Amino acid sequence: MNRKQLVNLIDEKQSFLCVGLDTDPVKLPEHLSKDAMGLLKFNKAIIDATLPYAVSFKLNIAFYEALGVEGWQALQETIDYIPRDKAFIIADAKRGDIGNTAAQYAKAFFKDLNCHAITINPYMGKDSVTPFLEYENKWSIVLGLTSNPGAIDVELQELKNGRMVFEETMDRMSQYGTDQNMMFVVGATKAEYFERLRSVSPNHFYLVPGVGAQGGKLEDLKPLMTHDCGLLVNSSRGIIYVSSDTDFASAAGEKARDLQQQMATMLNN
Amino acid sequence: MNRKQLVNLIDEKQSFLCVGLDTDPVKLPEHLSKDAMGLLKFNKAIIDATLPYAVSFKLNIAFYEALGVEGWQALQETIDYIPRDKAFIIADAKRGDIGNTAAQYAKAFFKDLNCHAITINPYMGKDSVTPFLEYENKWSIVLGLTSNPGAIDVELQELKNGRMVFEETMDRMSQYGTDQNMMFVVGATKAEYFERLRSVSPNHFYLVPGVGAQGGKLEDLKPLMTHDCGLLVNSSRGIIYVSSDTDFASAAGEKARDLQQQMATMLNN
Repeated sequence: MNRKQLVNLIDEKQSFLCVGLDTDPVKLPEHLSKDAMGLLKFNKAIIDATLPYAVSFKLNIAFYEALGVEGWQALQETIDYIPRDKAFIIADAKRGDIGNTAAQYAKAFFKDLNCHAITINPYMGKDSVTPFLEYENKWSIVLGLTSNPGAIDVELQELKNGRMVFEETMDRMSQYGTDQNMMFVVGATKAEYFERLRSVSPNHFYLVPGVGAQGGKLEDLKPLMTHDCGLLVNSSRGIIYVSSDTDFASAAGEKARDLQQQMATMLNN
Repeated sequence: MNRKQLVNLIDEKQSFLCVGLDTDPVKLPEHLSKDAMGLLKFNKAIIDATLPYAVSFKLNIAFYEALGVEGWQALQETIDYIPRDKAFIIADAKRGDIGNTAAQYAKAFFKDLNCHAITINPYMGKDSVTPFLEYENKWSIVLGLTSNPGAIDVELQELKNGRMVFEETMDRMSQYGTDQNMMFVVGATKAEYFERLRSVSPNHFYLVPGVGAQGGKLEDLKPLMTHDCGLLVNSSRGIIYVSSDTDFASAAGEKARDLQQQMATMLNN
């Protein structure tokens, strides 16, 4: 999926919502089996209910790896279930390694699983992202400034040149790709840095976690928007676990619609 | 496996060699099938041939994920094949994410796959490592200064406080664990920084890739050694692909023995 197609989806659905499928068998509604089979049923129902309001689904790979072989199978089947032209599919894998290894991850997530995008950890620099950028119409979503407390340890360290580590990182990584094949992860909880973020990457799309469970507010993200939206806002726990009863899917759909309606207002202002 | 047990293994085998199972089906000898089944046969033969000379095996998870469900199965079977008391088993996964996600990765690699250690990417800071440290006798091997050219983009940036990013990162991460449950990845190609590395983490074990294919030399690592060795030196391509014929395993064994003999000399000087 290219940027124009993604922006078309956002226009059509009047939404920039990404639903995070961080599906944990322990948290499944009582009537579903607490295994990979139950997880797959849950994911399919959530996808059906939220697809009209979401332009993207993000699969948190850790939750599938924690179920071993069956988890990987459920991951594959979940991805295959999402209509590829109606949603932007993100593997939230946060991979990052030397070139020959990054090439293997690129094969796994872009070719075999056929995701549109993967999240990338930039600590190891250039050669950890370039193998992903060789795939046409696929996206590398590089960690910029994350929403978690630990961001202080590396990302928010101040460099001798006056920049913070996250700014230097985003600037350098953006030189290896373009705003047509690279996005950045930017935490919703980091409002005090929004200006610095957009000054270093004025036109890149941002994937924004941290709205909902982590305390960030949707309306505060307005300053991060570009002329063509420029945002995918993720909500995981805040949507998929709204109800733990048999109505979990319709409750998730309603929550997604609430967020979509707020987003429509933001898109039209 | 705790530090004492690891050091005992090093003493017994007179080796601090880690064999990297970055097994790529494309590179398998002609008589083996180019799939997960062939890969598993290859791994078992390499393990048998190198176990007398290696104290550790490192599985590069990317190569298994690139084979999907069958790859994950081969990963599990390879790990189960390694005698757990005769080798320290490392999942080279370079994971790093917020707490609830890191906890899922910890379950996947420590509980289900039963590895002794996992490599961790520290870009997101404290909460990306702490869930791993809760497991007893398991190790987090945190990226410090890596051997690849891209290290210049983030790791080698200079901070306002005079340190480089890798030094600040290692110092901060070391405060969340101990030298009994945390190691660091340090590239063999980065000799000019060895003094700075040991001044910030004098007693931690280092996992050192970059000897062989990436150009680092074994004898140059002497300044990194501690009183109880303090090193695991990894060789992947330099051992497992020495021969692409039916004698691949015995050729790998011979190469491993060569390295072990050099290591014995280093241990006794």
